[in-house]
Amino acid sequence: MKTIRSPSAMTTWSDQLHREGVVIGLVPTMGALHDGHRALIRTGRRQCDALVVSIFVNPTQFAPTEDLASYPRPIEQDRELCRTEGVDVCFEPAAGAMYPKGFQTLVTVPAIARRWEGQSRPHHFAGVATVVTKLFNVVRPGLAFFGQKDYQQCGVVRQLVKDLNFPIRIVVCPTVREQDGLAMSSRNVFLSTEDRRIAPIFFHALQAGRQAIENGLSEAASVEALMRKVIGGEPAIRIDYLAVCDPTTLEPLINIDRPAVILGAVRLGSVRLIDNVHARSTHGSRQHRQGLAARED
Amino acid sequence: MKTIRSPSAMTTWSDQLHREGVVIGLVPTMGALHDGHRALIRTGRRQCDALVVSIFVNPTQFAPTEDLASYPRPIEQDRELCRTEGVDVCFEPAAGAMYPKGFQTLVTVPAIARRWEGQSRPHHFAGVATVVTKLFNVVRPGLAFFGQKDYQQCGVVRQLVKDLNFPIRIVVCPTVREQDGLAMSSRNVFLSTEDRRIAPIFFHALQAGRQAIENGLSEAASVEALMRKVIGGEPAIRIDYLAVCDPTTLEPLINIDRPAVILGAVRLGSVRLIDNVHARSTHGSRQHRQGLAARED
Repeated sequence: MKTIRSPSAMTTWSDQLHREGVVIGLVPTMGALHDGHRALIRTGRRQCDALVVSIFVNPTQFAPTEDLASYPRPIEQDRELCRTEGVDVCFEPAAGAMYPKGFQTLVTVPAIARRWEGQSRPHHFAGVATVVTKLFNVVRPGLAFFGQKDYQQCGVVRQLVKDLNFPIRIVVCPTVREQDGLAMSSRNVFLSTEDRRIAPIFFHALQAGRQAIENGLSEAASVEALMRKVIGGEPAIRIDYLAVCDPTTLEPLINIDRPAVILGAVRLGSVRLIDNVHARSTHGSRQHRQGLAARED
Repeated sequence: MKTIRSPSAMTTWSDQLHREGVVIGLVPTMGALHDGHRALIRTGRRQCDALVVSIFVNPTQFAPTEDLASYPRPIEQDRELCRTEGVDVCFEPAAGAMYPKGFQTLVTVPAIARRWEGQSRPHHFAGVATVVTKLFNVVRPGLAFFGQKDYQQCGVVRQLVKDLNFPIRIVVCPTVREQDGLAMSSRNVFLSTEDRRIAPIFFHALQAGRQAIENGLSEAASVEALMRKVIGGEPAIRIDYLAVCDPTTLEPLINIDRPAVILGAVRLGSVRLIDNVHARSTHGSRQHRQGLAARED
């Protein structure tokens, strides 16, 4: 496995492979790799001829009040995981190489980034969209792999790829969870023992919401109240948002008459966790079936 | 010469050539091609293996009050010019193909776009930066050719290429002028006979400013006053701005102690014209020489 630090050396490597007709895959990460990343890497390994993992704790997607300084950076372990999984290149650019003096360009995806994470973290998605655009231009992959845990981020990236005509296929891989259901995240290591014990209630609440929708509950407000009640049993968990949304636009639904995604963010001590689940309304399917039947008449 | 209208067909064409190691050049235009474009095309033809001219009157860089509807679109003449100059592809995307329903992503280059054209036309450079990013991803050129007449636009494009890591070399070609000095522009056809007669005074004023700087005038305010006086002889010309600036940041200079660019925009009837000239201060050169001498000590 190669370690490449300079963006221009990375592009040279990719250009060489392109001339040989090789399909390059990219797994963009901020390091502190866990089994969720491992699943992305394995999927990438299967679908591409050559695989690049970028490890870059991108400063522009953190607010000044957030955990940039303390974000975990176990680079030797990360490289070892990449080596074990057959990654071809670990791309580890320095912040100064990505954002030299005078840097100013911003990529924004206003509509899909407006709510939820975008509201709680106002400049977060501009940071994400800009660094992903840069990584796409530096690595020039044919496919890029993202985890469903960051659902809204996946939406932002899909939209920017479509809008800016990047010839890249975005592959979203299912969220990988601990045995007790907690979504894997590099930030989980910051949970206290007690907070770690109660954290899975967040996922249990999302599951309860999904179950209620699949059992026929069709008012988003009732589903949200139900999930709040589940989490309310643990006063240490503070809810940032919990919402039943359209899976493409991420606009909140009032009546759940179509496939939906339940998005959530909570705080446990100083740690902020996000998670999401898909839910398919039986009302939606029935209406959908009726719609189909009507069209067949 | 091929005419390609679909962005995905354009990318397929470029991908094929890339696999053969061909260097593609791009001349992005809004059509209504004149000898300024012809010079860009000839330079591109000399420097690249294959040459694409894009013809797209980009709606997002016009304000609602501006001349999008009336912008000239002599597409047959444009194709004929391209054919004559040995262009390989005229890329003519439809607006709906470039901006399908749900389009939302924006590329902005805030610092360099803030003043001058950016102040007079608030959303103009976001439109330019976004469409240029799209064209770069669709055509995937190794070199792209722009005219110095749109000086600030060249700065915006250079900055976004650098900031977003596009592996593209930006080539800026000198402004092509009519015999009387008026910079060639697709909008010149809208000048009335009388306005066309007096229009070259704009360039004469810029030349007077340059001459004054080269003769040793070092206060930008004095140079600007001099240029205003030249234009003041023709009350039909209304000045939008005239400024002596740093050629890279485009920030206005107070003392002209280094190479400068004089930027200007004027209105003649309903037509808005822009132009610019480089000027090298003798003060600047003397100080520069002294600086060099000092370093040699």
